[in-house]
Amino acid sequence: MKKLNTHIQKDMIQRLVRYKNALQKFKSMGLTRVFSDNLGEAAGISAALVRKDISLARLTVGNKRGGYPIDALAQGLDSILGTHTQQHVIIVGCGKIGTALMHYPRFSSESIQIVAGFDNHPDRLAPDALIPILPMSHLSAFIKEHDILVAILAVPEHAAAKVFDQVVAAGIQGVLNFAPVQLKPTAHLIVQNINIAFEIENIFYGVRFNQSQ
Amino acid sequence: MKKLNTHIQKDMIQRLVRYKNALQKFKSMGLTRVFSDNLGEAAGISAALVRKDISLARLTVGNKRGGYPIDALAQGLDSILGTHTQQHVIIVGCGKIGTALMHYPRFSSESIQIVAGFDNHPDRLAPDALIPILPMSHLSAFIKEHDILVAILAVPEHAAAKVFDQVVAAGIQGVLNFAPVQLKPTAHLIVQNINIAFEIENIFYGVRFNQSQ
Repeated sequence: MKKLNTHIQKDMIQRLVRYKNALQKFKSMGLTRVFSDNLGEAAGISAALVRKDISLARLTVGNKRGGYPIDALAQGLDSILGTHTQQHVIIVGCGKIGTALMHYPRFSSESIQIVAGFDNHPDRLAPDALIPILPMSHLSAFIKEHDILVAILAVPEHAAAKVFDQVVAAGIQGVLNFAPVQLKPTAHLIVQNINIAFEIENIFYGVRFNQSQ
Repeated sequence: MKKLNTHIQKDMIQRLVRYKNALQKFKSMGLTRVFSDNLGEAAGISAALVRKDISLARLTVGNKRGGYPIDALAQGLDSILGTHTQQHVIIVGCGKIGTALMHYPRFSSESIQIVAGFDNHPDRLAPDALIPILPMSHLSAFIKEHDILVAILAVPEHAAAKVFDQVVAAGIQGVLNFAPVQLKPTAHLIVQNINIAFEIENIFYGVRFNQSQ
């Protein structure tokens, strides 16, 4: 992977990922060139910021007048974001949500491969399945042995903090957390918390707020 | 529900919800008073902004020196955010993710009740189940008849836009979307998109970014 310019910040990386996804969609629709207005609209980012990002990331190909050539722009983004290699992920907690994610059809098209699940319930274990479900006692060794960098946590609230510490100690560098606990990122640990009940509560508050206006 | 002051903005509502959740946790730990520093830390918001919000929302109870009394603060928040009534939700798309959410144990403790699922696959239908799964042809009538305000969409990508239009036309005012499509909110429609594959991709980009530093 090409070394990133130091002036490319994390927020920008998030935006570059959005551009990349939007470009893929434009391409699948048969487009060959795209204007910053449309790219911004698809990515939910202002056209001015799109142009600034493209300039800062030194992706400036083509001119603004005719729009950006999609293929060249996508290649430039790939060289910054890294090529699309297989992304190995484990799932800790194989209840309903964990199991649903284990077989989530969308992952395969994004090169995301769930390589194993881990659980404490003896009747959930399936060591010989295509995606094996292994006991928690194997978790740390598996992460180290297979160089796993990213884990999905779908454990109950009471187990989340302990499991989090365990996977981080074993070498995990990125966590997608579905447990209803706010796990904290550090300088070298990416954490994304998805609290589904909280999201629905927020939607209800927003709806009531709209109704009260 | 108490009419909101016009100066309470949507971002603030989101923060008030966070305070409310943090206060519940402090209370469950046996605390009776909390300082803005701790409340901010638990909610991921600066202490200065916590104090500003509490003042703007006219929640100013107790004085800064001794910390805020948790019960009075929580009651003040409840009077703004609305009381904790039963929150009825439908799920459209009863594949693996939809089914997992239908039986998500966490919802019940948050007064969120999934009242029905909808799907097009004849073998997924279960009109007599405790949470019935009904055909899509019943969707609009069900929303209107039962005054449903919030829907979870767990449909495939190709179906998302059409289903979204359908539920909004039937009166839905808030959507939690798991389809890998960015659905757009409007002035009177709350939309939260959760794209799980996208979140994992972002985590991988973040991990690679950290490794390159």
